[in-house]
This record gives sequence, C-alpha cells and structure tokens, in this order.
Amino acid sequence: MNMSPANVPKETLKTTLCFSIQDKVGGLEGCLAAIKAMDISLTRIESRPSRTKDWDYDFFVDFDAADAKQVSNVVEQLRAHTKVVNIIGSENTGDSVVWFPRKMTDLDSFAEKVLEMGEELSSDHPGALDPVYRARRMDITRIAKQYRTGQAIPDVDYTAEENETWGKVYRRLTELYKSHACREHQYVFPLLEQNCGYSDKGIPQLEQISRFLKDCTGFTLRPVMGLLSSRDFLNAFAFRVFYSTQYIRHASRPFYTPEPDCCHELLGHVPLFADPDFADFSQEIGLASLGASDEDIEKLATIFWFTVEFGLCRQDGELKAYGAGLLSSFGELEYALSDKPELRPFDPAKTAVQKYPITEFQPVYFVAESFKDAQEKVRHFAANCMNRPFSVRYNALTQSIEVLDNKEKVLRFARSIRDDMKTLTNVLEQLG
Amino acid sequence: MNMSPANVPKETLKTTLCFSIQDKVGGLEGCLAAIKAMDISLTRIESRPSRTKDWDYDFFVDFDAADAKQVSNVVEQLRAHTKVVNIIGSENTGDSVVWFPRKMTDLDSFAEKVLEMGEELSSDHPGALDPVYRARRMDITRIAKQYRTGQAIPDVDYTAEENETWGKVYRRLTELYKSHACREHQYVFPLLEQNCGYSDKGIPQLEQISRFLKDCTGFTLRPVMGLLSSRDFLNAFAFRVFYSTQYIRHASRPFYTPEPDCCHELLGHVPLFADPDFADFSQEIGLASLGASDEDIEKLATIFWFTVEFGLCRQDGELKAYGAGLLSSFGELEYALSDKPELRPFDPAKTAVQKYPITEFQPVYFVAESFKDAQEKVRHFAANCMNRPFSVRYNALTQSIEVLDNKEKVLRFARSIRDDMKTLTNVLEQLG
Amino acid sequence: MNMSPANVPKETLKTTLCFSIQDKVGGLEGCLAAIKAMDISLTRIESRPSRTKDWDYDFFVDFDAADAKQVSNVVEQLRAHTKVVNIIGSENTGDSVVWFPRKMTDLDSFAEKVLEMGEELSSDHPGALDPVYRARRMDITRIAKQYRTGQAIPDVDYTAEENETWGKVYRRLTELYKSHACREHQYVFPLLEQNCGYSDKGIPQLEQISRFLKDCTGFTLRPVMGLLSSRDFLNAFAFRVFYSTQYIRHASRPFYTPEPDCCHELLGHVPLFADPDFADFSQEIGLASLGASDEDIEKLATIFWFTVEFGLCRQDGELKAYGAGLLSSFGELEYALSDKPELRPFDPAKTAVQKYPITEFQPVYFVAESFKDAQEKVRHFAANCMNRPFSVRYNALTQSIEVLDNKEKVLRFARSIRDDMKTLTNVLEQLG
Amino acid sequence: MNMSPANVPKETLKTTLCFSIQDKVGGLEGCLAAIKAMDISLTRIESRPSRTKDWDYDFFVDFDAADAKQVSNVVEQLRAHTKVVNIIGSENTGDSVVWFPRKMTDLDSFAEKVLEMGEELSSDHPGALDPVYRARRMDITRIAKQYRTGQAIPDVDYTAEENETWGKVYRRLTELYKSHACREHQYVFPLLEQNCGYSDKGIPQLEQISRFLKDCTGFTLRPVMGLLSSRDFLNAFAFRVFYSTQYIRHASRPFYTPEPDCCHELLGHVPLFADPDFADFSQEIGLASLGASDEDIEKLATIFWFTVEFGLCRQDGELKAYGAGLLSSFGELEYALSDKPELRPFDPAKTAVQKYPITEFQPVYFVAESFKDAQEKVRHFAANCMNRPFSVRYNALTQSIEVLDNKEKVLRFARSIRDDMKTLTNVLEQLG
Repeated sequence: MNMSPANVPKETLKTTLCFSIQDKVGGLEGCLAAIKAMDISLTRIESRPSRTKDWDYDFFVDFDAADAKQVSNVVEQLRAHTKVVNIIGSENTGDSVVWFPRKMTDLDSFAEKVLEMGEELSSDHPGALDPVYRARRMDITRIAKQYRTGQAIPDVDYTAEENETWGKVYRRLTELYKSHACREHQYVFPLLEQNCGYSDKGIPQLEQISRFLKDCTGFTLRPVMGLLSSRDFLNAFAFRVFYSTQYIRHASRPFYTPEPDCCHELLGHVPLFADPDFADFSQEIGLASLGASDEDIEKLATIFWFTVEFGLCRQDGELKAYGAGLLSSFGELEYALSDKPELRPFDPAKTAVQKYPITEFQPVYFVAESFKDAQEKVRHFAANCMNRPFSVRYNALTQSIEVLDNKEKVLRFARSIRDDMKTLTNVLEQLG
Repeated sequence: MNMSPANVPKETLKTTLCFSIQDKVGGLEGCLAAIKAMDISLTRIESRPSRTKDWDYDFFVDFDAADAKQVSNVVEQLRAHTKVVNIIGSENTGDSVVWFPRKMTDLDSFAEKVLEMGEELSSDHPGALDPVYRARRMDITRIAKQYRTGQAIPDVDYTAEENETWGKVYRRLTELYKSHACREHQYVFPLLEQNCGYSDKGIPQLEQISRFLKDCTGFTLRPVMGLLSSRDFLNAFAFRVFYSTQYIRHASRPFYTPEPDCCHELLGHVPLFADPDFADFSQEIGLASLGASDEDIEKLATIFWFTVEFGLCRQDGELKAYGAGLLSSFGELEYALSDKPELRPFDPAKTAVQKYPITEFQPVYFVAESFKDAQEKVRHFAANCMNRPFSVRYNALTQSIEVLDNKEKVLRFARSIRDDMKTLTNVLEQLG
Repeated sequence: MNMSPANVPKETLKTTLCFSIQDKVGGLEGCLAAIKAMDISLTRIESRPSRTKDWDYDFFVDFDAADAKQVSNVVEQLRAHTKVVNIIGSENTGDSVVWFPRKMTDLDSFAEKVLEMGEELSSDHPGALDPVYRARRMDITRIAKQYRTGQAIPDVDYTAEENETWGKVYRRLTELYKSHACREHQYVFPLLEQNCGYSDKGIPQLEQISRFLKDCTGFTLRPVMGLLSSRDFLNAFAFRVFYSTQYIRHASRPFYTPEPDCCHELLGHVPLFADPDFADFSQEIGLASLGASDEDIEKLATIFWFTVEFGLCRQDGELKAYGAGLLSSFGELEYALSDKPELRPFDPAKTAVQKYPITEFQPVYFVAESFKDAQEKVRHFAANCMNRPFSVRYNALTQSIEVLDNKEKVLRFARSIRDDMKTLTNVLEQLG
Repeated sequence: MNMSPANVPKETLKTTLCFSIQDKVGGLEGCLAAIKAMDISLTRIESRPSRTKDWDYDFFVDFDAADAKQVSNVVEQLRAHTKVVNIIGSENTGDSVVWFPRKMTDLDSFAEKVLEMGEELSSDHPGALDPVYRARRMDITRIAKQYRTGQAIPDVDYTAEENETWGKVYRRLTELYKSHACREHQYVFPLLEQNCGYSDKGIPQLEQISRFLKDCTGFTLRPVMGLLSSRDFLNAFAFRVFYSTQYIRHASRPFYTPEPDCCHELLGHVPLFADPDFADFSQEIGLASLGASDEDIEKLATIFWFTVEFGLCRQDGELKAYGAGLLSSFGELEYALSDKPELRPFDPAKTAVQKYPITEFQPVYFVAESFKDAQEKVRHFAANCMNRPFSVRYNALTQSIEVLDNKEKVLRFARSIRDDMKTLTNVLEQLG
C-alpha cells in the first residue's frame, strides 16, 4: 500500500479523553457513573491501572463530538472528578494534540476510513468501466471492512484469471530482482517461496505472509479497502502494522496499475519488512508520525516516499533498489538504476522537503547508506527537527504506545534499560 | 491454575532441530528437499532469516522421534548440508538441551498434554461420582483442547447453578480481601468489575479478562484442560501466558475443591497479573524455566509455590497475602496472616529447597519485600545458582524467545539498549 | 588508618556557599566585588562554568563563620545578585546540608584537623612516656600537616630501629597471610614486593605505594597526623583517597599498638586497595557518607568497621580475612578464623546497627559473599535506607563530586551512559 | 600548541612489551629475574594486577631496541615464561602496533622529543637572529624539558617586555572576540580573568590555568619545548592533556609569529578546553590517534587542523570562530567570517582528506553543527573509517588507556555501564 499525500476533510470530531482519578473507595464507580450520565455518544470507556506510584486509575473515553464546544463542556464536567484531563482530538488546538492510536486495537477505527472507495475507480484505471472487475474488487474489500485486530485475515479465493495476472507480473519482476533488488530483498525472497506459497502459480494469502513477518520482525499485515490518508497510514507503522490491499490489477493490463494492488504490496513491500533493520526504520517513521502536526506529517510522508517507496542504496559498490514503488515497476526500476536520474544522499531534513511527481518517473532519488543508519537519521530528525512536545515508545508487550510525558513513565523506562543492562552483563559473563 | 510438582513420563521423543545453511543459489530448496526425503514424521518445517551477518537461513524442524538413535541418524544426514545442528530434545543428553517453546505458537503443542484428564477426577473430588458434573467438565475442557494461539477464547455459557456457586465464593472472598489482600490486588479488583464483568452475578469470561490483562501488562490467559507438568506450566510464563481452567467446582461444596478451578484462577491469580512488577516477576520465573534441568525445574516450581501461590508480603507494616492459593482459600488466608505459621524472608536459594505439604496449610511462608525486589532476586538466582549454559530473553515483537548464545545476538541486544538510551536522553532533554 | 567513631566538637562554622549568576556583561565582576566587600574571612572564592544550559556561572565561596547568624546575613546579601544559594555548612539545619568536600583539593582543609594529636598519646601507648619517640612521631607528622593535594608525598628517612620493628612485624604477618589472608591480598602482595619495595628490610615509602595504587584502581594515599573524625575519614574514600599514617609503633612492643601505624596501613589496608572490586566497595561507602546525617555517618562507620577493618569472606569454601584490623593483628587474625566467634552474613541494614567493642576481640564478624556483592548492597543501602535528599557521583576527570540535583546534570549523566553504550556496541562489533 | 603534520624520523626502536604470567608461587620473581638477565637497556619494568579472572600478573617492559631483530630475540626468550606477548613498537609491523602511551606518565618520554628545538628557529622567525631572544626562549623551554607528570608547572618570571607584548596582543584580540568568537569562548573568558589572572597586565601562568581547566573538564596543560610530531601531539589529547608553549613571540612584531607561542595557546586554545563538549570532542580525536597507522594519523591531524585550529560554527544564525588558529590571528579571524572563503559542513570522512596550506589563509573552512555533534561524528569516523583493530577507552581513575581487546575487559566495561544505570535510576527516583 501507499498513501495519498493529502489529508481527508474531517467531519466529526473523534476525541479521546485521558484522565486519572485517585484510588479511593467507590471512586471508580462514581466517575464511571458521571461519564455515562453525559450526553455524548461514547465509543469506548476503559479504566486501567495508572503507571504512577500514586495508585491512580487511568480513564480512556472515546466519543464523537459534534463540535469543539461539546468537547469543552465534557472536559469541564470531568474536572470535578479528576486530575488533569488530556484531550487527544481531531484538531491540534492549544489544549489538545491531534488524535493518534494508542493501542493496536485503535486501528480498527480506520477500517472504513479510506480516501477512495472501491466503487469509484479513477478514470485512468483500466478497470474503471468494467462492472465485473469493480464488483469483484468491492467483494474483496469487504474483508478489510470487517477485519478487526487479532483476527486471522480470511483467505481470498482468487480466480484463475487473477492468478494468471499475478503469474505474469511475478515472472517478469523476479527476473529483474536478480540484478536490481537490494541484498535484503534477494535474501528474503526464497523464504517467502518456501514458507508463504510465493510462486507464479497464484496469489499468496495475507494471513500466511503476516504470520511469517511476525516471526521475523513483529510486522503484521492488515487488509485495507484502498488509499488512506498519510496520517492514518503512517500511524500504523508505529505498531509495525502494514496496510495491504488484497485485490489485483485489471487483467487487460498486467504491467500497469494507477493504484497499489497485491502485486505492489506482496512483491515490492513484503520482503523488506522481514529485515530487522528495515523494520526498525519503518517503525521509526511511524512513531514520529503519532500526534505530529499536519506539516510534519507531510514531511514524514515525503521521507516515506523517497525511502520505503522509491529508495535506493549502495551495496558492495553497486546501486540497488529497496523501494517498493521501484520493485513493483518494470520501467522505473531499470530507469532508477541507470545514469539518468539525479542521486543524493539520504538526509531526512533535506529529503523531507523535496518535491516529487506522482505520475511520472522520479527525477531525484535518495541513496541510503544502510537501513540502520537511515533509522538513526530519522530518529535524530524526529527528536530535533519536528515540532512535537512529547516522546513516545512502543510497548510490544501491551501492543500500545507509551507517551513519555511524566517522570514516573521515564523512570519505568530507565529501570527497564537498567534491567536489560543486567541481562546483558549476565550474558557477557556466560559467553566468557 | 497451578501445577503438579511431578513430571509426566515421556513416551515419544518430541524433538526440534535448529540449524543454519548459507544463502547460496538453490541452497534453500536443496535443504528442504533433503529434509522431506527423510523417514521422519515432521510436525513443522520452517525456514527463517538468520540474525547473523553471514546471511544464513535458519531451519526449525520438529518431529516425533521413535528413539534417540533415530535422532542421531537424522542429525548425521543433515550435517552434509548444514552448519552446526542444535538438538532441542525430550531429554537433556550431552549434545541436546531439554525441549522448550521458542515461539508462543509452540504452546499449542501442550494443548492436550495434561497430567490428569477431565474424565478421571481424584477420589476426594466432590464431583468424582457425579456423571453430570463430569460430562459438563469435559464439555468445557473441549475449548482448551481445540484452542490455538491467536484465537479468541470462546465464551462458556455457564449454567445458573455454576453462576450461583461462583456468587457464593465471590461474596465471601471479596469480603476477606478488604483486610487480607495485598495493595495491588485491592487496587486492581474494581477495574475487573468495571471492565471484565466481575460480580457475584456470574462467572466472567476468559477472553474479556485476557484482553484487559494484555492492555495492562501483556499477560494473556489460555484455557487449559487440567493439571500440566511443572515444566510446561512454568515455560508458558516466559511468554506472559497463564493457563487458566474454565470449569468450576462442584455445587455441593462451594467452599472446597482439591483442584484449581475458575474461582482460584480468576479471583486468586488474575488481579496480580495486572500489576507490572508482579508480571515481570512471574515472567522471570518462566524465563528461568526454559530448558532448565529437571532439578532446576523442581526448584523453580517450589519458588513458584511459595510466591505466586502462597506468597505473603509486608505493606505499610502489615502482613498481606498475594499468593493465589491463599487468596482463593478462606481458611488458609486467615491462618497465614495469624501468628501461627513461621515466616521467613523470601530468598530464592533457600525458598527453592524448602519442603512443603500439598494437602494441608503451609507451616512456613516466605515474605517478599516487593515484587520488584523478588524479581531481581529470582534473576540473580537464575544467573548464578542454576545450571543452564545459555541466557534467554523474550522478544515481545515476535513473541519468541531469543537464546543469546552467540556474539551476533548479543550485539543486537546491546544495540537495542544503546538505542533505548538514545530515546531516554531525548526524553530527558524534552522533559527539561 | 582507622577512625574514631565519635565526632569532634565543632568550634568554627566552616561554610561553603554555592550559587549561580547569569552570564551578562559585567555580571561576574559585580558579584565578585560584592563578595569581597562582605566582612567575612574568605578561604576560597572560585567561579566556574555552570553545567546548565542557561550559561550561568557557579560561585563557590568558603568562609569560617563566627555563628549561624553571620551565615544568614551573608546569604541575605547574596540574594540580591544570585539565583538560589546553597549552604553547605557545619551543621545540618533546615536550609543547609552538612559540609562535605566537593573537590579533591577540599581535603586539604582536613590536614590539621585530627582528634588526637601526635603530642598527646593515650596512657596505654607504649611510647607515651618516651620523649624521644614522641618527638620523632611529631617530626614525621609534620609531613602530613604540610601536605597538599597533588604533591608527591615526601619520603621519611626511617631509622634502623624503625626498620627493625617493621621487619619483625613483616616476617610474622607474612607467614600468617599464607593461610589466613583472602585471595586478593595474597595475589597483590608479591606485586608490592616487586614494585613498591615491600620487604622485611625496611618500611616502604607512601609515594611509591600511592603511585602503584593509582595505576591499579585510582586509589591514592594521603599522609595523616592521627585519628580523624569518622565523617572526615569516610568522606575521603569518595575520592578514592586513603589517609595513612607514616610513623611506626614503639620499638619496645613490636607486636602491639593501640593506634594505627604504618604496619597497620601498609600491610593490612594497602593490598586490598589494589583490587578493583574492593576499591569500588570502599568508594561506595565514601560516597554514601558525603553530607550524610550524624546518625547515618555512625551507621556507615559501623559498616566500615565490620568490613574494611574486620571483614571476613568465604573463598572456595574456606573462611578468610580481608579486614585490615585482622590482617595486622596476630592474635585476632587466628581467633577470627577459629570456631569461637559468631559469624553472620554481611547485610548493611543489620551490620550498620551492630554494637562492637574497640579494645577487645570482636564477638561477631560479618562474612561477605564477594566485594562486588558487598558494593551493591551498600549502594542499595545508601539509596534506600539513608536519609539524604540527593545523589552524588564521582567525576574522576575533574576529581570532584557531582551532586545530581537538577535535570541538567541528570541529563548530562544520561548522555554519558548513552555514549558509553555506543562505545560498548562498537567494541562488541569489533570483537565479533 | 599545534603540531607539524610530518613525522620525525625514528632512530631508536622504543618498544613496550606487555605480557601476562600466571599467579603461582615464585612466578613473579622468576619472571622478573629473567627479564633483568636480558641484554637490553630497560627504561621500565612494571608488574600490575591483571584485570582478568585468571589471577594473572601483567608485565610492562620498556626498552630501546637496537633493531627489530633484538625485539624478536627478547620476545622469543619471554615466551618460555609467559602467555601471549604483545609488542607495542616503533613500527607497525605484522605482529606489533605502533607505540602509544598507556598511562599519563608515559607522556614523560616525549619531554625532549620535539621536531624543532628552541635553538634552531626558522629563518622567517623575527627572533631568528636575536641571540638574547633565543637564549631566553631556551631558558624557558628548560621547564618543559624537566617537567614530569604530576608536578606543578613552575611559573615563569616574565620580563616587562614580554608582558608588554602580551598586553598588545591581548587588547586587540579581546576586542575582536566580542563579535567573532563563539559563545563558549566568550562565556569562559571572564572566568579566566577572575580565576587565572588573565589581563593585559601580564602573561598568566600555566599552573593556575591548568588547575582551573582540571576543575572544569579534567583537561590539564603540560609545558612543551616546541613542535611535536602529529602522533605525539594528538596522543596526549586521549588523556585530556594539552601541550602548551610558555615562551612568547619576538617583541619586534607583536602581531606576527610563525610558530605557536603562549598568546596562541592561552588566548586561542585554553578557553575552549573549559567547555565540556569541546573537551569531549578533543579527547575523541586523541583516543582515535592511539596506535593508529601513519595514514590515519595524517587524517586525524587534518581533522584537528580544520576544527581545533581553524574551526567555524554557526550559532543563532551567525558564523563564529572556535579554532585557536583563528582566535589568535587578527587577519585570518576577520577573513574567515567574511564571505570570501568557501564553507563546508564538517564531515570527518571528507574533512580528513582536504588539502590545506600552512602559510596562507585557508581557502576552505568547515562549519560544525555543535561540539557534541562533531564529537559523535569523529567517534563514528574512528569506529568505521579507520583501520585499527582494537578499541580504547580512557580510565580517568587510573589515568590510563584501556585497550578493550578481550572479553574480560569488555565485561568490566559493561558492568560499569550497568552500575551507572543503577545510579541513574536511583537519581530519577529521588528527583521524582
């Protein structure tokens, strides 16, 4: 999948309120009753242990507000019961940050939120006027629409024609990979053939691939109906979740499609997500995108474009492609490695503001030294060049984002590093 | 759940072979073909990226060997293709370590492996002679038998009688908790009432509780048919997985049962697993148990007994219970906090070798300073007093165990600590 | 050297004021002028770069105040120029902490501050009535009186009689060490013979020994006139400085002395300070003593007594001595390792409150598991059981104590750990 | 001071042998006797505790070998007694590394080793034909010649003429600093005036300045007779030691000198060494230079040239100078900040190979982002782009270099990081 650089217009004010109350007898019940009595359409109420030493309870309340005034009213009422109320809202106003998913299950709320629906294909889409193709596409996207975190992704029973289209693409691309794909892509590909049913015989299934990726790096796939906004798309990377389409291009033009399809996802993107350093790099962009300003989201989307989609790297002195946009495009892959385009070293601060065309070959590509180096540069960029007043880290145990905004959380983090250092010294002692 | 201190007799030699081959053209296919050609009943073949810098592929092959000789034969044949072959086998011989789960999905192989089946209740069980109770119990354990990692745990449609039994236990125990349960238990309990349906009206469902625990600490519940061996039971804690029964005691004796039931699990164990420090402590025991010798497993099971099952702690000068065995037993809970039993400070090296009766009140209890302190002591015990020639850590991203047995893995671990330190300094800069 | 458990009566109020002013044009000159204009007898004015990001200047002003009122007056006047003024004073009042050395050169102010002067030997001292001995002793202590940090310690030209006394002690003790001294003592001793002139021919010189220790662990010796208060004596350990007498016992009784002399220091103490773990352990006590309350100083002095002076340890199953009081006493060394005294495991919280006789053999000894373990226990004790509202660390580059009392300093510390982690991963990469 | 880019011709083979022997009865004496029996002119024999767990003794033997053959012979003879012998020699042959100082006292061997002696001034030196100036210069360099580590640097009794020359330079440069010097230089300068006697009245004394720097960052000054080789000069930075001349330029031309003098050192270099980040940066270059190949030394010397001597930085949008060569040159300081020269971002890999003129203004300058950033880049350069098969760290406690070439040392380093992490978490707990 890739994403649209533009953001969708917001219609309702999806709002999350986070606040804490003290553990006192009956406190939890009282607060819950007060919330339920409010005139808001709740989509979630959760109370959780607060990770502070004060034995507080944390509340997370999601609701769709009619307008900013309603949000203010609710906050006002809550102040009677609570400590500071944090507003994670649709708009970044003075007292709130832009909404972002805190838990992997929060991604479920994006399920139906796509920029372009299956029904309305752009006029240059080879299937735009083919009602059978359009019906089939809509049929497949139903899986994405109904999918929820934690479920197995249902297999699609692909038609012979779909499998044939895949086969044509597969054979031509895998031939090109031998000389043009980066080391990591070439290394992982045979594993996908052995473990995930990759072959020119038919389209492999997302669930099997997702389990393989989970074993390798913790990445998982999630079916998607179509294009997402940059923010929604990038946010998921913070959880090592990649949105993947399941449908395939029109059979009439196997070597062309104006939108991402399963050929792009499974041949271009998937192999790299099995690489630990690339996985770290991708997640770093995702973490930087959480709660970022619209301007920063655009910068991150541009970085994403010039790396995960159109990135080049130099390996053993030779230029190779690792971007999925290149690895799923016959023409551009060869062009990118020729001497025609301009090459620049990857540097987030500069890459982030480079303009780029969407419908033509790129005039400029950025060359990464290594994925590890690229990750460190993005981390440095996020910490120093972005305008976000908080830091986050991903807690893989709870599949949730921790906002490191108070001493208690920082202390807990420091302790975990200390404990890791104890383990490391134990290990070094044992290796001796 | 708790576990039987004895181990089951081994009948087949469940064996995992781990080995690596070099990434060369066709190497992966050749190795796969060779394995398939062997005369062994394979239960898994997986090839994965090797986390070394040599671009090796790792293979994991599970099979049930008839005898040790067959294992040797297979290893012999593999040497033609591979680098060093590691044998993770049923028995700890000179050239193998005792089998242990490497991935969370490996726990699926325990599903049917219980010491005592639902059909055969011990003679002192109040339901032993009640065919209706026994049939119902077997009916419920079918869920555990069929459950696989990643699935939602099906709800049980409890009968009115079952819910009534629960209600009786619930009312009496929650009354006792006010004065006898440790701070953490009391703090979490109202959250279970609000989020997981805890009440005296009926038995709450594992799936809802498991999701709550996952949010809090990453712990999850897994249904189980009955008693497991100590090794199998403890191993699961390495993955923050707790085996929980779903059936309830016989209605005729609501305040007694000779085996763990859902009252014991959900009222005794569950609240503590929502506490981060207790969760860390429990996992520490689990990690120590992976691949441990039978002697060390017995020590760890004893430590488990005197902490997770029968542990006491001192809080604000008062003695409180945190062990689930105490928190689900009316009589022993009050006895333990009286001046009758002997109290000793928790010290893994000593606790591990303390004898204990299973069918009577404990004559000796061990008092923990804090869960954090107890965790550090268990870690120290595992690193210094156990006889295991390797160190492990849990990778929550891939839900797998990393055996830190070579420099490449240690280096990767060191890098992750370094990266965490970078994040921590970034955070401290921002908090400033 | 050892120390008197009692504290000396305070006569003048040695006071250090620490404060910061902003870097603005002429600010530094103005502040300096204001201080000089005050009616106080300054012993130091220093301005230094402040390690904050605000480009402040730090001032350190030492003066001997007549009384507490004068201190208040000075602080009052300074407030016009400065940010918060920290008072490090003779007495721990509400707004000050007990004075402690911040820089190694601050130890120079202890030079003449001893509890018992060379002139006044206790009545049980074999030299008490020998005017020649007393004159000689006073002559030697002049070196200590004039010594300042950074200087080479002048050699003493020992008399033949002094060297003979040393020889008698040396021969008898070294014989005992073969079976009674701990591994570390036995290991270092031959190095002292080769590098520092240890032999039964004559008393070795402090300067040569001090240079050797500096190479081994960074410890240095500093000559002292006699007994110091516990606080002054322990504080020096924070800088890895050990106060050592240079004079020797009376020739009439070579196997007895009621006060520490060079036999005690050089044979008992010195070898252990060449051991990295013991050096760490000793410094840990010193760091804990900085600015501690009088009660806590007494506890630390007791811990010191039962470890550095009278400590035992178990090595390869055998009990050995590492305490200098034992290693320089013929009778008690053999008694301590017999089955007569009571042995207890070293546990700072308990050891700290154990009563002990000064003039008889100890009825109770504490046995350490290892120096590393003892260090960790003392660190834990200092962090959790002492009543000091700040943390300190030693900066070996600047030979000064950093009080980690603001975010800027903590951040700088965190960065240094991060940088060390980078170095460590670089090293692990290279070793691979 | 700066240094000559060329290396001195080697005449004798200064050689250090490091080896270890086992702690067995009499082993140390036997080995010592064997060494002394060899026909070599020893300059040092030291035995020290080995930081391994095998209770080995380390030997360090310095001698001046006649030729490579003699070194081989000695090594041959030692093999009978020892484990592996490491040769740290004058030439980097297959089995040795280039000699480098391991302890701060090793710098004493450079005392008389200068490229150009005081007697022989270059022909363009304004004092070349003035016998009085030359005699005075030689008189002053005698201090450097006789200086040994740990001693106080004797003050020079400067003449009225010398002080006047200083005054002229001082007044003109300090005027320029207000607008041209970097923030750090401007911030420290008033402290030098208050604490170290900086003024236009006369030349301040090295000892006083060195003590001030020691307090700030641990840097110290060491008097030097004249130009050193790049290797010798850079090596000292690993110990935070800066070689400083004490003599001053010829009175006839106060604003010109072809060689470094005390104006250059004290006004150009000294202020920056009081800045913690700049101190770290400078030491990083020094550490990288230890045992480096001649090619790498040249690269590091070039990096040094373009940073410590001629570095620029951008602060609050304005270009400022921090290089001492600029800060002690009227003409070039103004030229460098004009729009005439070319500016490039500091990048060690590129800076290291940039050619530069010595006798004219630089055509190219490199601009650092910050000293911290520059340090990290040099560290990265040293770890990745240099050809040195070992890593080093400075142990400030023992004022020695640790070569991290075995597991035992790496483990000890890892433990120190772990212990620092414990302290950090304790501090964070306390700050909470």
